[in-house]
Amino acid sequence: MGKKIAVLGAGSWGSVLASLLDENGSDVKLWSYNPGQVKEFNERHTNSKYIKNFTFSESIVATNDLAEAVDNVDYILFVVPTQATRSVAEQVAAILNKRNQQVNIIHASKGIEEKTYLRLSQVLSQEINPQNRKSISVLSGPSQAEDVVTKDITLVTVASDNQRAAKEIQDLFMNHYFRVYTSDDVIGVEIGAALKNIIALGAGALYGLGYKDNAKAALMTRGLAEISRLGTSFGANPLTFTGLSGVGDVIVTATSTNSRNWRAGNELGKGKSLKEVIENMGMVIEGIATTRAAYELSKKRGVEMPITSAIYHVLYDGADIKETINALMTREGRSEIE
Amino acid sequence: MGKKIAVLGAGSWGSVLASLLDENGSDVKLWSYNPGQVKEFNERHTNSKYIKNFTFSESIVATNDLAEAVDNVDYILFVVPTQATRSVAEQVAAILNKRNQQVNIIHASKGIEEKTYLRLSQVLSQEINPQNRKSISVLSGPSQAEDVVTKDITLVTVASDNQRAAKEIQDLFMNHYFRVYTSDDVIGVEIGAALKNIIALGAGALYGLGYKDNAKAALMTRGLAEISRLGTSFGANPLTFTGLSGVGDVIVTATSTNSRNWRAGNELGKGKSLKEVIENMGMVIEGIATTRAAYELSKKRGVEMPITSAIYHVLYDGADIKETINALMTREGRSEIE
Repeated sequence: MGKKIAVLGAGSWGSVLASLLDENGSDVKLWSYNPGQVKEFNERHTNSKYIKNFTFSESIVATNDLAEAVDNVDYILFVVPTQATRSVAEQVAAILNKRNQQVNIIHASKGIEEKTYLRLSQVLSQEINPQNRKSISVLSGPSQAEDVVTKDITLVTVASDNQRAAKEIQDLFMNHYFRVYTSDDVIGVEIGAALKNIIALGAGALYGLGYKDNAKAALMTRGLAEISRLGTSFGANPLTFTGLSGVGDVIVTATSTNSRNWRAGNELGKGKSLKEVIENMGMVIEGIATTRAAYELSKKRGVEMPITSAIYHVLYDGADIKETINALMTREGRSEIE
Repeated sequence: MGKKIAVLGAGSWGSVLASLLDENGSDVKLWSYNPGQVKEFNERHTNSKYIKNFTFSESIVATNDLAEAVDNVDYILFVVPTQATRSVAEQVAAILNKRNQQVNIIHASKGIEEKTYLRLSQVLSQEINPQNRKSISVLSGPSQAEDVVTKDITLVTVASDNQRAAKEIQDLFMNHYFRVYTSDDVIGVEIGAALKNIIALGAGALYGLGYKDNAKAALMTRGLAEISRLGTSFGANPLTFTGLSGVGDVIVTATSTNSRNWRAGNELGKGKSLKEVIENMGMVIEGIATTRAAYELSKKRGVEMPITSAIYHVLYDGADIKETINALMTREGRSEIE
């Protein structure tokens, strides 16, 4: 019998990771807050709002009940939206505490908590009591759910405060098309994962405004540089930003029309208002809150982040997107490495 | 009156750079080895084989005569194919030597010389006498000619052994849509520029074989890591590979269907032979020779380059592309930073 795993959050990424773990032989429960979605999943084995044209294995059981989901599990994988992570973690913490249950915690969400500006491993470690958790890890990298479903070869990173746990988690997820590397740089992986959505918004906006490939490549390159500056100011390893959860994830998110953040940026670039864009998407656009968090963090730490600032002013200050992006792209720079 | 500049090589990039320099106020002569191309350029102000639907300024004069092209110029910009650079430089050297003329040398080609495995600044410094040159610089970055013509915002790097020359060259090329950064890392910029074509071949091959965005992002990320390993073994600054002539150029070359190297890889992935691909392209595919040079260099220096090796074996050893790429993408890796 495989390991018992609870996957919390049944969006596109959560449900596809549940499917992968099930395929690899784990015993998977999938939790969603939405009873209608649970019903659809258990009756028809589909998750039609998030993953089109895919039928899940009947061995994955969905549930609306968190206590049932985490009952007796070895691992809990959080894949809920960033801003919902704390409240779900709080409920999980109470259940684990009552049962004296000890688990390995993993998350695969990409964002920074609003107001606190905390990474998700920090949120999880605040909420879940130390005696109820053996490890906290993060899974990240260039991994569109749509491509994992069709078994495209996918390389990801699992970073952990506990390298033994990282290796166990590597074994849980690894198969012939899903390749997992380990890392000890939780800070770098989480910052890369979260902030790449800002670059995706920017790349989408460029495209919507009519810019082409040269401008896109320039924005992505300079965007990575500023993410790396912020990350290293928090102690991240600069090499992490040249790896799968840095360069890799920026590439997949900012060059694929599957990315929600790219699509949101594109709509903004075409002149839609932020309100319209959010309403049309109907799914969480992580980059919007992340832009604010990164902007505030950059101010606090005195790290120059011109791309993040430009997007922040467009999203939150009503700055004209065309003028702002043009000013950003033509700002004076002299030496490349400053 | 602006500076006098000879642009040697009238392919897509050479002719577009000539146009840019002319637009910025320089006095530009464009040299081509091909009399028919020179005639078309001077009579119709087009370069139809290389740049579609674009009319050049009448103030750019094309010539088939190298001595005329470099007469009294301040700068010579080499944009000939990598493997032709030495023979053109040899002819230029004889002219400069005879005239006791001193110039600044720039090149904007992307490759490594076959057999010698030298970077182009090394080839140029071997051929052109020290008393005839004030500086040698390289211009590189994510800059598709097709996008520069339509004034897409483009960010590039000029790296030089002479920072005063780098600043002068920055001023020559810089305008409101073409943004130039300086660097002192000639080695890193040239290695990044040359070797990104290997990644473009690989990304094209992946696409031709049916892989999707996750695999593409993974290949690009791991490809950059191996380019960086080889470059730093030659003394390049690792940060260069995270910049415009590293990440930036890999992104534009490996995600744009404008790239010849990407297109060549795509054709190979779809099952065409190397011979057919070369014949169909009708233009130089720099990545083919570069793959061999990089492969040989990696062996000499003991640097692990699995992607380059895989592509080398497909191009030169008749290895089956499907099996080779699949083995490459699913090879065992454990920790991301090894």
